[in-house]
Amino acid sequence: SHELIQRNWSTFLLVTVGVIAGLLSSSMDIAIFQLGVARGKFMHLVDNPFGQWCLWWIYLLIVLWSGIFFTSILAPQAGGSGIPEMKSIISGIHLKYVLGYRALVVKTFGITLALGSGMILGKEGPFVHLCCIMANCLIRTPLFRHIRKNDFLLQIMLGAACAVGVASHFGAPVGGVLFSIEVTSTYYPTRNYWYAYLGAVTGATVWRYVWNSYFTHPGFTSIVTTHFVPERSRFGLVELCIFALLGFTCGCLGVTFVKLNALGFRTWRRIMQNSKWFRSPYLLAFVFGTITCIITYPKLLGSFMALSPAAALSDLANAETWSETSLKSKEWLNRNIFANLFFFALSRFILIPLSILIPIPCGLFVPSLSLGASVGRMFGEISALLLDNTALLFENNPIIPGVYAICGAAAMTASITHTLSTAVIVFEITGNNSHIIPLLITVLVGVATARKISSLGMYESLSKLK
Amino acid sequence: SHELIQRNWSTFLLVTVGVIAGLLSSSMDIAIFQLGVARGKFMHLVDNPFGQWCLWWIYLLIVLWSGIFFTSILAPQAGGSGIPEMKSIISGIHLKYVLGYRALVVKTFGITLALGSGMILGKEGPFVHLCCIMANCLIRTPLFRHIRKNDFLLQIMLGAACAVGVASHFGAPVGGVLFSIEVTSTYYPTRNYWYAYLGAVTGATVWRYVWNSYFTHPGFTSIVTTHFVPERSRFGLVELCIFALLGFTCGCLGVTFVKLNALGFRTWRRIMQNSKWFRSPYLLAFVFGTITCIITYPKLLGSFMALSPAAALSDLANAETWSETSLKSKEWLNRNIFANLFFFALSRFILIPLSILIPIPCGLFVPSLSLGASVGRMFGEISALLLDNTALLFENNPIIPGVYAICGAAAMTASITHTLSTAVIVFEITGNNSHIIPLLITVLVGVATARKISSLGMYESLSKLK
Repeated sequence: SHELIQRNWSTFLLVTVGVIAGLLSSSMDIAIFQLGVARGKFMHLVDNPFGQWCLWWIYLLIVLWSGIFFTSILAPQAGGSGIPEMKSIISGIHLKYVLGYRALVVKTFGITLALGSGMILGKEGPFVHLCCIMANCLIRTPLFRHIRKNDFLLQIMLGAACAVGVASHFGAPVGGVLFSIEVTSTYYPTRNYWYAYLGAVTGATVWRYVWNSYFTHPGFTSIVTTHFVPERSRFGLVELCIFALLGFTCGCLGVTFVKLNALGFRTWRRIMQNSKWFRSPYLLAFVFGTITCIITYPKLLGSFMALSPAAALSDLANAETWSETSLKSKEWLNRNIFANLFFFALSRFILIPLSILIPIPCGLFVPSLSLGASVGRMFGEISALLLDNTALLFENNPIIPGVYAICGAAAMTASITHTLSTAVIVFEITGNNSHIIPLLITVLVGVATARKISSLGMYESLSKLK
Repeated sequence: SHELIQRNWSTFLLVTVGVIAGLLSSSMDIAIFQLGVARGKFMHLVDNPFGQWCLWWIYLLIVLWSGIFFTSILAPQAGGSGIPEMKSIISGIHLKYVLGYRALVVKTFGITLALGSGMILGKEGPFVHLCCIMANCLIRTPLFRHIRKNDFLLQIMLGAACAVGVASHFGAPVGGVLFSIEVTSTYYPTRNYWYAYLGAVTGATVWRYVWNSYFTHPGFTSIVTTHFVPERSRFGLVELCIFALLGFTCGCLGVTFVKLNALGFRTWRRIMQNSKWFRSPYLLAFVFGTITCIITYPKLLGSFMALSPAAALSDLANAETWSETSLKSKEWLNRNIFANLFFFALSRFILIPLSILIPIPCGLFVPSLSLGASVGRMFGEISALLLDNTALLFENNPIIPGVYAICGAAAMTASITHTLSTAVIVFEITGNNSHIIPLLITVLVGVATARKISSLGMYESLSKLK
């Protein structure tokens, strides 16, 4: 009977967390979108290109600095990804200070400001953390007194809240459940599974409904519409080898990415220790903000450089050869497409691992998806150039570069984070599942390569550095 | 170093199991298909309808009896589903006799004969068991001596082999991994996750390649092509309520299904104990074989009654309203579609739980999917009749009865087996993922209902009865 009461309250708790997380996540997405729109309007207050750049730059700095200010005065420990902290907490280490109300507020507004500024940052890591804080704060209220005293149940609820976080960030419930398993370090209590599933489905449903109502049409459809035609998505053995090669490349790049982040972190810490003048986080934000503004300025290399990670992913994953379709940035097609993809990939490869050093709540999941998508798209476009209309492909099925982009995206992020659930998350956010086998193989090869080269994924590396 | 050797050998083992399982599963599918074709040819040796029925009936009895004979002389313990046994073994109970070479042979040929006879049975449960036997037998060979002595590793390998079994039966790797988590009773070692994923992807890739090459075109596409149009698959809140109602109905039916099976089992055991004459398994097979032959005879109620579970699922999940599309059985459209669906559902609801009592390796997963699909399709057709062109649906998006069929299929099987991973398996075998939210919600409601009414799923019920 006591157990039944606990079970009912746990169910109620996770549905509550799911509903709040879904609403919060979609509200934050809308706020971030509106901040981006405001930035575009602000920039067009003047007419000459240099003036426009300055406004574009000033807007970024003001929003980003206010985020840092907000974080530093309320809860400095709430900066960064949050997933390393969650891993520690779920494996039983008490880090109570990262689960308080202050962190809740800072995370919510910090992520919104960090992403709204136009920096190439993500929301996933901090949002997962945010959901755990939410679950923890709810359990502390008198309403949930029945489940408060049970430490084991608290762990289960926090694990399930991780699943809710992922699910209501991407609308990817199954990926969320798998992610919550991977976050758990050694033994996963199978009781979690039901709770994680319940919360994840609730969160994903609410998020998809609000998100779709605001951005597209009401309904629960997937986020990245890939327009793959199932009948044409047939992959032969030759293509599988290319996918494996793509996985290997992403694995190597992923390890380099983590090492670049660690190098940046150490360099920054050395500067902090040795210099009185350069230790301010505002200065760090100024440096990377300015670099970001120069590189991503739409009128420099092309409007595609300014795309948000999610928009870039959607463009890159577009199934058809680009000339035929409508893109968020038409300038992908200007000049040389390979050069465009290369510059995009290079800029993201340098910007993302360094931007996440800024002490503001921020993640790297979706940004690294967009990085991987550009690498994958390059593979796809080159393969299409070399192999289309040759006997190496089955039944003259043309190569679909969008599938390579999706596989590259998943493999890159999976190699960086050492998590296999990335494959499922990416699979769920695309509107089609004919590409599941290439996707899983690319991710498998990527993660195997990354683990072989280095035992530290991004989250372990960040934990160790801190 | 020792651990590294073990890790490499484990990896090698699972890739081997994956490749063999993929090849074996597809070979069995082809053999079952050919046995069905042979049955059709055999039946048409005579011209008059009654003679045809007799041949149709004799063929079933001969093939089924030979399967039972084969099972009873070689390894009687290999009959039935196998998943209850696997659950016991993975939770640490030694049932060594169910993992030997004899069981391997009996399972392989037993399933093929059971399904090839034309009985409404499935291959999933025994095939999962088969993969575990395969892993166990491989570990016992001198090649894998490095990992043999480690009992903990053996458990992990068997758990991963379950994932391989599911993956190479449906070509559903993610569902396989989740299933292997659900089979584990209390704590899932997260090390399993990597191995399960590896084996599952290998198995699914090989299976999909061979299966597609034989039945459709070379490639790795999904099995049930649903032809949903993502742009039209938008579900509003009203539809979600109908999905929840469908889940509730499937939950209730699922519990009844399990109880019907238990009732049949107890009745049969009482007959066995009290009577000298009626205790033969051949008699049991004769009774259910004859009933099956009468009910599923294509010229009685319609050719749809004779469809194999997988073919029926594919027909029922067809997105469009049926008049427009090509079906495996055109006679769904004869007379009243609701009557046809009702007779199909009723026949499956009675046949499946009783047929699995026959002591031959057989499962119920895909058959109960087809049962659920007919219930779901009925919901979908009725909703379309009542709601289409009303203001209750968003933006005049028509109701897609195929989506209801898929959700019903998943919810029914999930309610019968008490496993949430069914949702993911069904999701993966369909060629589209715009329906994931309704699917997960239907399954969630179904499983919650079933668990609320009865604590015993099919596997627990079978374990307890034995």
